Amino acid sequence: MGLKGVFVKTVIGVDLGGTNIVAAVVNEKGKVLGKDKRKTMAPLGAVGVMNRIADSVRAASQASGLSWASHLAVGIGSPGPLNPKKGLIIYTPNLNWKNVRIVDFLQKNLHKKVVLENDANLAALGESWIGAGQGEKYVLCLTLGTGVGGGLILDGKIYEGAWGVSNHIGHIVVDPRGPRAPYGNSGILEQYCSATGIIRMATEAGLKPPAGQPLEAYSFQKMAEAGNKKALGVYQVAGKMLGVGLTTAIHLLNPGIVIFSGGVAGAGDLLMKPMRKELKTRCFQSHLKGLKFRMAKLGDNMGVVGAARLAWQSLPKH
Amino acid sequence: MGLKGVFVKTVIGVDLGGTNIVAAVVNEKGKVLGKDKRKTMAPLGAVGVMNRIADSVRAASQASGLSWASHLAVGIGSPGPLNPKKGLIIYTPNLNWKNVRIVDFLQKNLHKKVVLENDANLAALGESWIGAGQGEKYVLCLTLGTGVGGGLILDGKIYEGAWGVSNHIGHIVVDPRGPRAPYGNSGILEQYCSATGIIRMATEAGLKPPAGQPLEAYSFQKMAEAGNKKALGVYQVAGKMLGVGLTTAIHLLNPGIVIFSGGVAGAGDLLMKPMRKELKTRCFQSHLKGLKFRMAKLGDNMGVVGAARLAWQSLPKH
Repeated sequence: MGLKGVFVKTVIGVDLGGTNIVAAVVNEKGKVLGKDKRKTMAPLGAVGVMNRIADSVRAASQASGLSWASHLAVGIGSPGPLNPKKGLIIYTPNLNWKNVRIVDFLQKNLHKKVVLENDANLAALGESWIGAGQGEKYVLCLTLGTGVGGGLILDGKIYEGAWGVSNHIGHIVVDPRGPRAPYGNSGILEQYCSATGIIRMATEAGLKPPAGQPLEAYSFQKMAEAGNKKALGVYQVAGKMLGVGLTTAIHLLNPGIVIFSGGVAGAGDLLMKPMRKELKTRCFQSHLKGLKFRMAKLGDNMGVVGAARLAWQSLPKH
Repeated sequence: MGLKGVFVKTVIGVDLGGTNIVAAVVNEKGKVLGKDKRKTMAPLGAVGVMNRIADSVRAASQASGLSWASHLAVGIGSPGPLNPKKGLIIYTPNLNWKNVRIVDFLQKNLHKKVVLENDANLAALGESWIGAGQGEKYVLCLTLGTGVGGGLILDGKIYEGAWGVSNHIGHIVVDPRGPRAPYGNSGILEQYCSATGIIRMATEAGLKPPAGQPLEAYSFQKMAEAGNKKALGVYQVAGKMLGVGLTTAIHLLNPGIVIFSGGVAGAGDLLMKPMRKELKTRCFQSHLKGLKFRMAKLGDNMGVVGAARLAWQSLPKH
């Protein structure tokens, strides 16, 4: 009797992004046993995309070679804001969804228990489970991507706040006189340390990517690495503001480890050097001493592994 | 047989301040059964002041008329930073103490279990127990006094962070180009919304208290209430910065209720009106809707009641 005959217990983690849907079958140790990746196709609308998610879940199951019954639950990560308890996506700008009851829809479609959480919290949960934050009790995770997301893990669980909208570190104010955000706030961390922020600051500094290169943060990162002073200045400001925002988060939350993920974090010392300088100037020694800073380890699997961990935690005895 | 003959179970809460020591015998429902208040006399140094604390605890016991054996534990609130687990006061500027092992000292002196926490966390704990935050699970408390202290209560317990130095809301950065704080940070909330901050801003605006009035925040509050434009402007800035700082705290922590205490909070709408305006402009609706704002209810007993609650929680079955 082969593996397929044994009743292996797994869950399925889903990462819903503006560009791709990824689904993975994950066992109790965090090992990925089967995976599916497909385009999100946002123009299909909420119902169309949710049907694609269900298809992706079934395809991941098939890729694992395991029986459908072996999957005990499904965890879904989505951009927020959302309400995990109600299984409700309140609003996602990149999909243009409003008040979508994704958990109800998928439970009916898949006949499995489905749980929902925002993607930044799940990145943090995944990293604290089997990644850079393994063994740590207070884990603060920053995802520096198109936007800036944050996740806080306490004792292996996501810190939820009163109604599940905590850890929005991208929206803390780092300069009250800074540029205006679409929803009325201004000078928030996301406007400096995200890809969008890097592109904005570079463009304002009169920079353009070299001919043939796309208008994305990575193009300006390469310019900075090649010594372009204006591009270096952009990363200097981004790193400084990251230091200002982290000073605030560290004084409020006293994490034991800070983990960075996302494309913009790939700029490494371009960003981290001015950040460290700012932290050293601003933070109490009592908060900074002993605090670890690490890069995320799970790479592309971070989202689905975090979603799978949430699914495991939703089951009795996990 | 009178009350003294019955074995009543109580704890003793102590509030250690720069000016006064207060000790109170408190029962399981938060009722104060006996109290002592005396000058701190900071120039006596750490050992001298700790002996005064022990004397105050014994005097509170006597005032309660209860037997010494009825007091099961002692809780102490002190300004921070401190390490609750080690029972260590790391540094208190207003007493000029460094690395004082107050828990060891008092346990030896009083022969009782002694627990330590910072005063702002205990204010929050007291208010969430029997004050303005009763029944709430996620309570954020701001003490606007000489400085600005913060406490966060989750499920009836103090949020501690990785090593007990979380909730320093007074030290979050609200303007990176703001005035320099003594320890290297700059533009922190405490520099605007504390009594010290109000006095600084008023003095910088060329204001002086009327003849015969002391140089304290309350004198400028009265000037503002009488319509003095410069004084009104000071409270306008303080309230605005309170709104900026709270925007950050609300996006990170998602509290269900925010409670204000301390002398500066007594300015009421002078401070709260510009704060509310700033919050309305800056916060996500998803974070602000349903969030309560209240004034603290326990008054002078806040510190000792919070310290007593901590003592109760340190005992089995509480």
